[in-house]
Amino acid sequence: MEETPCGFDSHPRHMQKTQSKKLRIIPLGGCEEVGRNMTVFEYGKDIVILDMGIQFPEEDMPGINYVIPNTKYLRGKEKNIRAVIFTHGHMDHIGAAPILLDKIGNPPIIGRPFTIELIKYRQEDYSKGSSKRLKPIYVKKLEEKIKLGAFDIGFFPVDHAIIDAIGVIIKTPAATVIHPGDWMIEHKPVGRKKIKYNHLAKLPRPTVLMLESIGATQTKKPVTEKQMLDNLKRLIKDAPGRIIIATFSSQVQRIKQIIEYASEVDKKIALDGFSIKISVEIAKKLGYIKTEKGTIVTIDKISDYPDKRVVILCTGAQGEEKAVLPRIVNNDHRFIKIKKNDTVIFSSSVVPGHERTVQRLKDNLYRLSDNVIHSDVMDVHTSGHSNVQDIQEIIRQIKPDYFIPVYANHFMLREAARIAHKIGVPESRIVVPDNGSVIEVSKESIETGKKKVPTNYVFVDGLGIGDVGEIVLRDRQMLAQDGMFVIVAVVDKRTGQVKGSPDIISRGFIYLRESKDLLAQTRKKVINIVNKTAASGGAVNWIHVKNELRKKIGQFLFSKTKRRPIILPVVIEV
Amino acid sequence: MEETPCGFDSHPRHMQKTQSKKLRIIPLGGCEEVGRNMTVFEYGKDIVILDMGIQFPEEDMPGINYVIPNTKYLRGKEKNIRAVIFTHGHMDHIGAAPILLDKIGNPPIIGRPFTIELIKYRQEDYSKGSSKRLKPIYVKKLEEKIKLGAFDIGFFPVDHAIIDAIGVIIKTPAATVIHPGDWMIEHKPVGRKKIKYNHLAKLPRPTVLMLESIGATQTKKPVTEKQMLDNLKRLIKDAPGRIIIATFSSQVQRIKQIIEYASEVDKKIALDGFSIKISVEIAKKLGYIKTEKGTIVTIDKISDYPDKRVVILCTGAQGEEKAVLPRIVNNDHRFIKIKKNDTVIFSSSVVPGHERTVQRLKDNLYRLSDNVIHSDVMDVHTSGHSNVQDIQEIIRQIKPDYFIPVYANHFMLREAARIAHKIGVPESRIVVPDNGSVIEVSKESIETGKKKVPTNYVFVDGLGIGDVGEIVLRDRQMLAQDGMFVIVAVVDKRTGQVKGSPDIISRGFIYLRESKDLLAQTRKKVINIVNKTAASGGAVNWIHVKNELRKKIGQFLFSKTKRRPIILPVVIEV
Repeated sequence: MEETPCGFDSHPRHMQKTQSKKLRIIPLGGCEEVGRNMTVFEYGKDIVILDMGIQFPEEDMPGINYVIPNTKYLRGKEKNIRAVIFTHGHMDHIGAAPILLDKIGNPPIIGRPFTIELIKYRQEDYSKGSSKRLKPIYVKKLEEKIKLGAFDIGFFPVDHAIIDAIGVIIKTPAATVIHPGDWMIEHKPVGRKKIKYNHLAKLPRPTVLMLESIGATQTKKPVTEKQMLDNLKRLIKDAPGRIIIATFSSQVQRIKQIIEYASEVDKKIALDGFSIKISVEIAKKLGYIKTEKGTIVTIDKISDYPDKRVVILCTGAQGEEKAVLPRIVNNDHRFIKIKKNDTVIFSSSVVPGHERTVQRLKDNLYRLSDNVIHSDVMDVHTSGHSNVQDIQEIIRQIKPDYFIPVYANHFMLREAARIAHKIGVPESRIVVPDNGSVIEVSKESIETGKKKVPTNYVFVDGLGIGDVGEIVLRDRQMLAQDGMFVIVAVVDKRTGQVKGSPDIISRGFIYLRESKDLLAQTRKKVINIVNKTAASGGAVNWIHVKNELRKKIGQFLFSKTKRRPIILPVVIEV
Repeated sequence: MEETPCGFDSHPRHMQKTQSKKLRIIPLGGCEEVGRNMTVFEYGKDIVILDMGIQFPEEDMPGINYVIPNTKYLRGKEKNIRAVIFTHGHMDHIGAAPILLDKIGNPPIIGRPFTIELIKYRQEDYSKGSSKRLKPIYVKKLEEKIKLGAFDIGFFPVDHAIIDAIGVIIKTPAATVIHPGDWMIEHKPVGRKKIKYNHLAKLPRPTVLMLESIGATQTKKPVTEKQMLDNLKRLIKDAPGRIIIATFSSQVQRIKQIIEYASEVDKKIALDGFSIKISVEIAKKLGYIKTEKGTIVTIDKISDYPDKRVVILCTGAQGEEKAVLPRIVNNDHRFIKIKKNDTVIFSSSVVPGHERTVQRLKDNLYRLSDNVIHSDVMDVHTSGHSNVQDIQEIIRQIKPDYFIPVYANHFMLREAARIAHKIGVPESRIVVPDNGSVIEVSKESIETGKKKVPTNYVFVDGLGIGDVGEIVLRDRQMLAQDGMFVIVAVVDKRTGQVKGSPDIISRGFIYLRESKDLLAQTRKKVINIVNKTAASGGAVNWIHVKNELRKKIGQFLFSKTKRRPIILPVVIEV
C-alpha cells in the first residue's frame, strides 16, 4: 500500500481560501470498509473526529494483533482538534482510542455513557491509570447540543447491536452532516418505539447524509426483535435442562431482556466470560440493567439448582479458543460439562473470518447436545445492520441534499449510490469515497479530487505500533509457506576452505530427522559452493559467497522438494 | 489429530464371520465434510471405492497445497480393490486420483466420459505419460451395469454444477446403497426434463440412502436454471459494450448455453484461462459442445470486432491471483483492459475461504466498470446443491430403509438426520457418521461402533506427500506469528568466552534496521549468558548453553516487544 502524498499543507494561501468556505470530510483508516474506523471533519481550522476504531487483521497479516487508522494527516494539526465523538462502543469504533487519543494531544471525548465507560475500560486495560487523563463529555440526553469551534454537534437515536448507539449531527456554516453511525431499522422493537428519521429533514440545508451502507446488497427480510425474543423466551421456558446462550458481550439490550425473562419464569442466571461480565457490570452501574437480588448467581453455584432452573449467558460464539463456549465444548471448563439435554443457543451471527471455527464448534457441540440452536435453524439473533429497503426508507425520510455512502466495501458503496440515485438523488450530489478521499462540501456542490491523504495500514503487534511493515509481513508470509533454512559454515581464514561439517537449522520446511539424505547432500553442496566461490582468487567477497549459497542451495532444495524456504547463510571466518 | 488404532485386522476369525454377512461402509478423508473425498465399501473380501478427492487447505495449514484421504486402512488389501467409481469431475472428488490410484495398485476406474477425461488430464499433469497406466471403464449409458466381485454397480442421473455427474447404485447381498454423490433438484431445467428419483424406491431392499446433505440448513428458495439463463441472456443481448463472464471452468453446461446464445445473437466468444480452455476442449472432443466455425475466436482477436459483439468467458471469479479476471483488473492482461461500459458478470458463488479476495476484486472492478453483476444484485448463478425441501423430496421419492447423511460438516449431517426423522425415518435406521466411522449394514440393522479407522490428514506440499506433519505445521504457524531470531555466537574453545560480536539474523520479527538499540542490548545479553553459562566449571555443556540462550533471550525479547519469535541459537567452538 503506497503512501499518497498528502499535499494539503503545501499551498497554505490557497488552502486558507477554500477552507474558509467548505466543509472537508475525510474517511480514514486502512480498513476496507471505507471510513468505518475513523472520519475527520474539518472546517476552517477546526477539526472534529468521529470514532477511533480498530480493524481486525486479515489472513495476509499473520501475527498482527490489529490495525489502527493512519493519522499522518493530523500531524501538526493536533491543536485544532476540538474533540472526538464516538457513535457507539464496538471495537471497530473505539478500539484505537487508547493509542490514538494520546497521539493527537488528548482532546475531549464525547459519547453516551455506556460508550464512554467502555472507552475508559479499554484505556485502563491498555495502560493502568491512564484513563484519568481522558476528558470525557457524557451525552446524557440526546437533546444536548455541543459547540466545538465552528461545529455545532447534535445527536439522534439509532438502533444497532449495542446499547447507547447514537447518530450524530454535525452542523457547520457550509453544510449539515447527518451520520447515523452503524444503524438498522428495528421494525418490531420490544419495549420501545420504532425509530423515525423524518425530523432530520428539517435541519439547516444543505444536508449531507453519510450512510453506513453494509446492507446495500442485502435484500433478505430481517428477523425482528419480537420474533427473536419470542423464540428465545419459548426456548428458555420449555428447555428440558440447562440453557446455555452464547452472544456478543456488547448486546446489552438482549442480555437485559434474557435476564428479565429468566427471572420472570423463576430461573437463575449465571454470567461467564470476561467481556460479558464487564459489559453487564457497566450496564448495572449505569442503571441500564436492574436485577433482583438472587437472580444472578456465580458460575460455581449453578449445580446448587435443578438444571431446569439454570440459564448460562456466556462468550465464545465465534469459537475463540479461550472464550467460554469453546472451553466448555473442549471439556476445559471447571464448572460446566455439556449434557445431552442442555439447550445451547448461538444468539449471534458469524463474524467474517470465523466461519470455519464456528463450524467446528458446532460440529463438536452437536456431538454432545441434542438441542443446539443457531440462526440456520431458528431466528435467535437479529442483525445490527440495515438492508436495501431500510436504506431506501432512511433516505426518503431524511431527504438529504448530498449523499455519501460509507462503512462498507467500495462495491457496496457503489450499490448504495445506485439505490439513492434510483429514488431520486441526482448523481452529481452523490460521492462514493475511498479511505483517504477528501470530500469538499459547500452550499453549492460536493466534490472529491484525486488526491488522497495517507491511509496505509498501521499494524499493532505486541508492544509495537507501526513497526511491523510490509517487509516483516512478507517475511512472515514466506516463513509460513515453506519455513526457513539456516546454513552455518565455518571457514578457515587462511585457506578459504570450509572447516568441518556445516551446521543446518531448519524450521517449517521439512522434518529433518526424516530427511537425512537430503541434509547430507545439502552439506556437501554447501562445502563445494563455499570452497569454490571463496577460492576464486584475491580477497574473499563474503557477500558474494553468501549470495551464491542462497541461490544455489535454494535451487537445490526446490528441485528436491518444490518448496522455497527462506535460505539464511551464515559464514564465519576463523 | 491422533491416529486411532485400526483394529480390524486383529481378530480375523471374528471379522470373517461378520464380513460375510454385512456390508461395511467407511467414509474416509480428513476433510470436515464427512466422506466427501472418499468412501470405502467392503463386502466379504471385495472392496469398491467411491471417489478420490482432495481437500483444499484451511487457514491453519500454511504452505500446504492440498490434503488427501488417509488410505492406511487399505494397506495390505490392495488386491481386493475391485475398482474406484467416480461420481463427477470436481477436484474434491477426483483430485487425489493421481497420487492414490498408484498407491492402491492401480485398480480400474469407472466414470462418465467427462469425468474420466478430466482424471486422465490430471494424471498427465501430475506425471507426464502416466495416464497410460490408467484402466478406465467409461459409463457411456446410464443403464449399464458393472459387476465387481460381490458388488453389482448401477447408475442414475443427477443434476449438479458439472456435466456428467452421476448417482451410483451399489448392490450387495446385504443391502443396496443409493448414493447420488453431489446433487440438487433443478426445478426448472432448460433443455431437459426434471430428474425424479422414484425409480430408486424399487431397488432390492434394504436400501441405504447415502445423501449429500450440505443443504440441510438451507431454507432459501433456489434460483432456477431458467431464471439464471434468462438473466444471462438479457445481459448478453442488451450489453452496451463487451461482456466478460467469469465462471467455474467445470460449469460446462452453462458455458455451452452461453456459447449457443451468444452465437444466436451474432456475438463472438473468446475463452480465456487455462482450466476453462481445457474444459471446453474436452467437452468438444466428447461432442458435448458443438460450435459453428468462427463463433469462438482467440482472445488476441477480440479487438477485430465491435465491443458489442464480444463475449469473453474466463476464469478468476474467486479472485485467484493468476487467473484471468484478477489479471484484467490489475491491468496485467495483454489484450483486455476494462472499459467503463463493459459488463462484468460473476456467474459463480464464492467458494468458502475466498470471501475477502472476491470482495477486493469486486471493489476494484466497481472502480473500473459501471456494470458489475453478481449474485448479490441479480440471479446469474445457480447452486449445485440442494436445500431442505429437496432433501425431503428425495427421501420421500426413494423411501430408503436406512439413511446415512454425508458430504457435510457433522452438525449439518445431524440436521439432515432430523429432517429424515421428521418425515418418518425411524431413528434406529439413521446413522450420522464421522470420517473413519465403520458402518455395518445387514438386512436387519445398521450400526456403527466407536472404533474408527485412521483418517488423520495427509498433507501434500510440493513434492512431499505426508512428510509435512504436525511439527512442521506448528513451526510454520509460529514463524508466521512472530518470525524467527537466529543467534550465532563463536566461542573460544580454551577460555569458553565469546569471541567478537555475535551474529543475529532475524526474519518476520521486527525490522532490524530500525531496532539497533534492541540488537545491541541483545548481543550484550548473549555474550553474558554464554560467558556465564559456559564458564560454570568443568567441561562445557553446550546443550545447556543453547537452552539458556533460548530461554533468556526469548524472555528478554518478549519483555521488550510482547512477541515470541522462534529463537535458534548456534554456538560454534573454535
